[in-house]
Amino acid sequence: MSDTVLVKSYLAQCAAIVEQALTEVLPAQWQVPDKLRESMMYSLEAGGKRLRPALVLAVAEAISGDEDTVTKALPVACAIECIHTYSLIHDDLPAMDDDDYRRGKLTNHKVYGEAMAILAGDALLTHAFHLIPKAAKAGGVSAQVALDIVEDLAMLAGARGMVGGQVADMLGEQGITSLAELEYIHLHKTGDLVVFSVTAGARIGGATEEQIKLLEQYGRNIGLAFQIQDDILDLIGDETKLGKKTNSDVEQQKVTYPFLLGLEESKAQVERLTQDAKSAVLTAGLAAPDRLLQIADYLVQRDH
Amino acid sequence: MSDTVLVKSYLAQCAAIVEQALTEVLPAQWQVPDKLRESMMYSLEAGGKRLRPALVLAVAEAISGDEDTVTKALPVACAIECIHTYSLIHDDLPAMDDDDYRRGKLTNHKVYGEAMAILAGDALLTHAFHLIPKAAKAGGVSAQVALDIVEDLAMLAGARGMVGGQVADMLGEQGITSLAELEYIHLHKTGDLVVFSVTAGARIGGATEEQIKLLEQYGRNIGLAFQIQDDILDLIGDETKLGKKTNSDVEQQKVTYPFLLGLEESKAQVERLTQDAKSAVLTAGLAAPDRLLQIADYLVQRDH
Repeated sequence: MSDTVLVKSYLAQCAAIVEQALTEVLPAQWQVPDKLRESMMYSLEAGGKRLRPALVLAVAEAISGDEDTVTKALPVACAIECIHTYSLIHDDLPAMDDDDYRRGKLTNHKVYGEAMAILAGDALLTHAFHLIPKAAKAGGVSAQVALDIVEDLAMLAGARGMVGGQVADMLGEQGITSLAELEYIHLHKTGDLVVFSVTAGARIGGATEEQIKLLEQYGRNIGLAFQIQDDILDLIGDETKLGKKTNSDVEQQKVTYPFLLGLEESKAQVERLTQDAKSAVLTAGLAAPDRLLQIADYLVQRDH
Repeated sequence: MSDTVLVKSYLAQCAAIVEQALTEVLPAQWQVPDKLRESMMYSLEAGGKRLRPALVLAVAEAISGDEDTVTKALPVACAIECIHTYSLIHDDLPAMDDDDYRRGKLTNHKVYGEAMAILAGDALLTHAFHLIPKAAKAGGVSAQVALDIVEDLAMLAGARGMVGGQVADMLGEQGITSLAELEYIHLHKTGDLVVFSVTAGARIGGATEEQIKLLEQYGRNIGLAFQIQDDILDLIGDETKLGKKTNSDVEQQKVTYPFLLGLEESKAQVERLTQDAKSAVLTAGLAAPDRLLQIADYLVQRDH
């Protein structure tokens, strides 16, 4: 089998493990109003690539070289999916992007109303921080490592991370002019959660501080490359494979990498970022680096 | 000086320490979009009694009998104020209570718009979990204790805690009929953050598991007594002292303790809860229990 087929099947396997774990993420014995539970689970179980949690599992395994690490990393993988899901629920709200559909399903507020969607988002965001101590309790993750992961997540998902990127994107709709502004948005709005997934996996896998720093570079580079590739696919992708219309960025007059840099330079940028990501992994001296190298290639070779 | 004067001045002193710390709660070196920082700080610095953070400090000191514990407890005191503030911002949104003013100032969304208010709330909620690891780093709080505090906060502020209470309150507006429903709302919507403040202070002060359980009872009882007293004051309080109109609950046809139990039985309930709270503190055998006993009395003897 080719590397692409192997890595696709590996990521799908990780996604399946995460999907299963997500069904049990909210303790059954917790007294939670039924409608709130339903609204949280509706969005949590709405599918998606589960790429961030898969990265947590993949990196943890690459560091330790031991499949059992996956079990240790699972609560943190679910935590990042809670964060990602809350951000989608809030993004879709009428006051934000005002979207009625996501992945072919009605958005949370279209089903449960705006107030419940706001609260379900708040609850999912909060729940992520319940799951991280759980990783420590379940065993194998020390209190110090779990606390470092909490600190990382709070920084990378908060004002200095994802929320900051979201605000910059919102304010920038009035007209981004520089590459620096566009890069700030991508690095934070989407990139920081990728960086979190990678460093959290590394911490659980038992990485040294030096390895964590290198993997942070890996995460930042693949996150940005992924985003630029998204811009490129919107411009020149195959609508059938993408499952959505192309050229939407142009129609919405969105400022993208190809718009600012041109198509060829954008492609070259993706290539450079991917190479840098792979170099960082190779320098880190991991027990089983191959899969992370394959993932870096796969994310930018995808056609959808 | 009477106990009331003493405890009032002590709580005011704690509030002043917290107010000062809150001005520096968002690291200056963090790259955060200006408007987001402004919107977060606008609500964080909007005043209020700072009762929850004061409780964190008071309990930490009562356990250790050592004034220096206050410094150790300060980041967690700020964390609970971040949570409380985010919950007010989201509660005030048009989709929720749709309030234009809070404590005489325009609500967050009236100043910064709905989208920013949602995101500032999200960022404050997330930031609380950045501050707790900081308490450990600043020294004196072990990683295990900090992680236990993270776990408590995520439970008591999330779907099974404050957000659950908020949802129950919202759904209950169509008609609460039983005392059990009303109690669920009070215990979770407001009570759980009081329980958190008390148990977090206890953990930082070095309490044993047995003491933490007793202080949890203390927190639950004073939280509920405070809430019932609020209902009573709305009915028979002095508008000048309260700084707001009385009888608003009756006008809004809100189901309250006096409505369900009658005024006399409500007063008796407050008295019972306060006694139970004080018994729990006395049983716990703390280094300096007096102030916690005074706080329990003060919260229900207040006339505003």
